[in-house]
Amino acid sequence: LQQHREDELRTLLDELHPADLAELLEELEDEQRAAVVQLMSGPTAAEAIAELELEEQAAIVTALPPEKAKAILDEMSADDAADLFAELEPEDAGSLLQLMTQEDATDVRELMTFPEDTAGGIMTTEFVAIGAQRTAADAIDELRRAAPSAETAYYVYVVDEQGRLVGVLSLRELIVAQPDAEIRSIMRTNVVSVHVNDDQEEVARTVQKYNLLAVPVVDDQDVLRGIVTVDDVIDVLEEEATEDIFRAGGVSDAEQQLDLEGPIWPAIRARLPWLLGLLFLSLVSGKVIEGFTPLMDRVTALAIFITTMAGGAGNAATQALTVVVRGLATGEMERDQVGRVVWREARIGIVIGAICGLVLGVTAMVWNHSPWIGLIVGLSIAINLMLAKAAGSLVPVIIQRLGLDPAVASGPFIATITDTTSMLVYFSIAALILGAVL
Amino acid sequence: LQQHREDELRTLLDELHPADLAELLEELEDEQRAAVVQLMSGPTAAEAIAELELEEQAAIVTALPPEKAKAILDEMSADDAADLFAELEPEDAGSLLQLMTQEDATDVRELMTFPEDTAGGIMTTEFVAIGAQRTAADAIDELRRAAPSAETAYYVYVVDEQGRLVGVLSLRELIVAQPDAEIRSIMRTNVVSVHVNDDQEEVARTVQKYNLLAVPVVDDQDVLRGIVTVDDVIDVLEEEATEDIFRAGGVSDAEQQLDLEGPIWPAIRARLPWLLGLLFLSLVSGKVIEGFTPLMDRVTALAIFITTMAGGAGNAATQALTVVVRGLATGEMERDQVGRVVWREARIGIVIGAICGLVLGVTAMVWNHSPWIGLIVGLSIAINLMLAKAAGSLVPVIIQRLGLDPAVASGPFIATITDTTSMLVYFSIAALILGAVL
Repeated sequence: LQQHREDELRTLLDELHPADLAELLEELEDEQRAAVVQLMSGPTAAEAIAELELEEQAAIVTALPPEKAKAILDEMSADDAADLFAELEPEDAGSLLQLMTQEDATDVRELMTFPEDTAGGIMTTEFVAIGAQRTAADAIDELRRAAPSAETAYYVYVVDEQGRLVGVLSLRELIVAQPDAEIRSIMRTNVVSVHVNDDQEEVARTVQKYNLLAVPVVDDQDVLRGIVTVDDVIDVLEEEATEDIFRAGGVSDAEQQLDLEGPIWPAIRARLPWLLGLLFLSLVSGKVIEGFTPLMDRVTALAIFITTMAGGAGNAATQALTVVVRGLATGEMERDQVGRVVWREARIGIVIGAICGLVLGVTAMVWNHSPWIGLIVGLSIAINLMLAKAAGSLVPVIIQRLGLDPAVASGPFIATITDTTSMLVYFSIAALILGAVL
Repeated sequence: LQQHREDELRTLLDELHPADLAELLEELEDEQRAAVVQLMSGPTAAEAIAELELEEQAAIVTALPPEKAKAILDEMSADDAADLFAELEPEDAGSLLQLMTQEDATDVRELMTFPEDTAGGIMTTEFVAIGAQRTAADAIDELRRAAPSAETAYYVYVVDEQGRLVGVLSLRELIVAQPDAEIRSIMRTNVVSVHVNDDQEEVARTVQKYNLLAVPVVDDQDVLRGIVTVDDVIDVLEEEATEDIFRAGGVSDAEQQLDLEGPIWPAIRARLPWLLGLLFLSLVSGKVIEGFTPLMDRVTALAIFITTMAGGAGNAATQALTVVVRGLATGEMERDQVGRVVWREARIGIVIGAICGLVLGVTAMVWNHSPWIGLIVGLSIAINLMLAKAAGSLVPVIIQRLGLDPAVASGPFIATITDTTSMLVYFSIAALILGAVL
C-alpha cells in the first residue's frame, strides 16, 4: 500500500508545474523536502529546485544522497548550477562538482568566474549555434539534436570558425525558410548583443528595448559565450526595482537578500548605520534651532510649527526626488534633459510653495490670533517648499554627475537635509519679522 | 541627387532596428517626423511607431496622408492599434478605422472594449491555434501561412470546435515531434492561462512565475481570445514598479503618464492635494507641541531636539514600511506571514531603539550639560524608534486587510503620522521627568 501511494505521489509530482512544486517545497520542513525531492524525476527536481532561493537550494542538494544530487545537477542548466555552487561551502561544491560530467563541470566553473551582477554572471551556456555555410534544414536538425530547454530554443546563432557571432535566426524564420536555403542568405546580420562584463541592468534594458526573447553575450573577441534569456531578465528588472525601492526608503541593498523570518541581526546591521547617521545629521537642524533659542524664549508659539515646516519640506523634496530618480533609472530622462527637469521642478515648487504658503499662513494666523505668526509661517512654507523641490531634483542629478547611482539619494536622507534648511529659513524669517515688530 | 539621397536614406531606415528608429523619431520635430515616417516601409514604420508614447503615436498617425496611415495600421499588431485608437479623438479614430480592413477593424474594436489594465487590454489577437486532431506537420504549415511576428510565434495553442483552449505546444516541441504525430498525443494539457478580466499585474506575475514567453487569455467559456506576450509583461512590471515607487514617494500615479518636459499644471494638480493634506495632518503634531508650550517656556532646550525626534521616527518607520510594502507587492511575503513580520520589525525596533536612544541620550547630555535632557532625549528616541518600526510594518498590513493596495501608505504619510506620536512621547516624557526634577 505504502509503495502504491508512493507511485501515485510520484505521478502527481511529475504532473505539477516546476514553479508550483517549488512553492510546495517552500512550505515543507527540511526532512520532508528531501523525501519529496527523492520522489521527483531528475528533470522535474532540477527545474523545481532552480526556482527556490539559493540558500534553500544549497540546503536541499547537500542533504540528498550523492546519486540523486548528481541526477539533479546533470539536468540543471549551467547558469542555475553556477549560482547554486556559488552558494555552497567550498568543500561541498568541490565534491558535487566531481559528481558532474567533465563538460558540465567545466561550464559551471567558467560561469562562476563572472561577477554575479554582469551579463556573464546571469547568462547560460545552453544555446544553439551553427555555421553560416550550413542550411536551414541543418539548423532544424541541430535544434532537434540539442533539444534545448524552452527558453533557450528560440534563436539559432550563427558563428564563424573562431566562434565569433556573425548572425542570428529566429525559430520562426527557420520554419518559414526553404529547407535548403543557406544560413548565410537568410540570417540577420545586425545582431543586438551584450558584452560579458556588461552590468545586468544594462542587459535587461537592452532585451526590453529590442523586445528580445534572449540576447547573445560575447567577449572581447566577439566570440559567443552564452545567452541571457528573457525570464532571467524579468528577475533582474524585479531585483533592480526592489533595490531602487529599498534605497528610496533608506534601506540597504543587503536587506534584499534577507529571509523575512530569519534572525533580526542582519537587518539591524543593515539599518542601524543609516538611522544613526541620519540622527546625527538631524542634530545640525537642532543646532540651528539652538541658535534661535533666545527668540523662542520670547515667542514660544514658534515651536508649534517646527514639525509642519520640516515635514512639509521633507515631503515636497521626496516627491521631486522620486520623480527624478525613477526617470534616471528607467532611462526615460536623458542626461541632456536634466537641466530642463530641474527647472521644471523649481517652477512647480514656486506655484506649490505659493499656494501652500498662503493656505498655511492664513491657518496659522487664525490659530494663533497673530498676523505676524501667519506671515512668518506662510512665507517660510512658501520658500521652504520651493527650495525643497529644487533640492529634491538637484541632489540626484549631482550624485549622478559624481558617477554614483542617483538612487542612493533616499527620501529619509533628503528629508534630513531639508530639516536643516527649513529651520534656517523659518527662524531667520521669524527673527527678521519679529525683530521689526517686537 | 535629392532623389538619390532619399533612396539612400530609405535603405538606411529599413536597416535600423525599429527600437532605434523610435528613439530617432523622438528626437525629431513634428514636420521632420512625418517626412521620415513617409520614407519608411509600412512594416518598419508600424513597429517603430508602436515603440513611441501613445500621445506621439497619435500625433504622427493623424499627420500622415490617409494611404500611408492605412499602410502602417495594416501592419500594426491589433493590440498596439487598439491602444493607439484609444488615444485618438473619436472622429480621427472613426475615419482611420474605416481605412482598415474589415477584419482588422473588428479585432481592434473588440480589444478596445477591455479596460486597459486587464489581460484583455494588453493581449494581442495574433496567435496561432489548431485543432487537436491535426498533425505536427499541419501545425508547422499553419505557422508558415500565418507567419506571425516574432513574439507571438513561440507557442501553438490547441482548441476544440468551440474555440476552447485544450492544450499547448511550443515551437521547440513541434520541431522535435514526428511530422505525422497527432497534436492530441503530443500537446501539453495542463495549460497555464489567465482570464480576460484578470488584472495586468496578476498576468505579469503568472508569466514571471512559470517562465513563459506568452500566456493565453480565455473568457468565461474558456474560449481562447488572445495572448499576452513576454515583452508586454516586462512593460507591465516596469509600470507597476514605477507606480509603487511613486506612491512610496508620495507622488500620485497620475504623474507617471506625464511628459517631463510638458506643462507643469498636471504635476501640480497631482502633487498639491497630497502636500496640503500632509501639511494639515502635521498641524496635529503642532497641536501636541502647543499643549506643552508652558513646559517649553521653562525649558527652551527641549525645542532643539524636535526635528531629531520627529525625523528619526519618520526614517525608522519608512524603513520598516518599505520592506513590508515591497514584500507584499512582489508576493514574497504571504498573508499568513504578516504577523511574524510585524513581530520581527517590533523586535528590530527594540534593539535599534535601545542603541540609538543610548547614543543620542549621551550626546544630548554632553551637548546640554544636563543629565535630565540626556535622559529625556535617550528615552524618547528609544521609545519612538520602537513605535515607528511597529507602526511602519503594521500600517501597510492594516491597509491591505481593508482591501486597499498597501502601496498607498507612503513614506511621507507615515512620517507625518509618526511626527505626532513622537511629539506626544517626547513631551510626555519631558513633562514626567522635569516635573519630578523642577
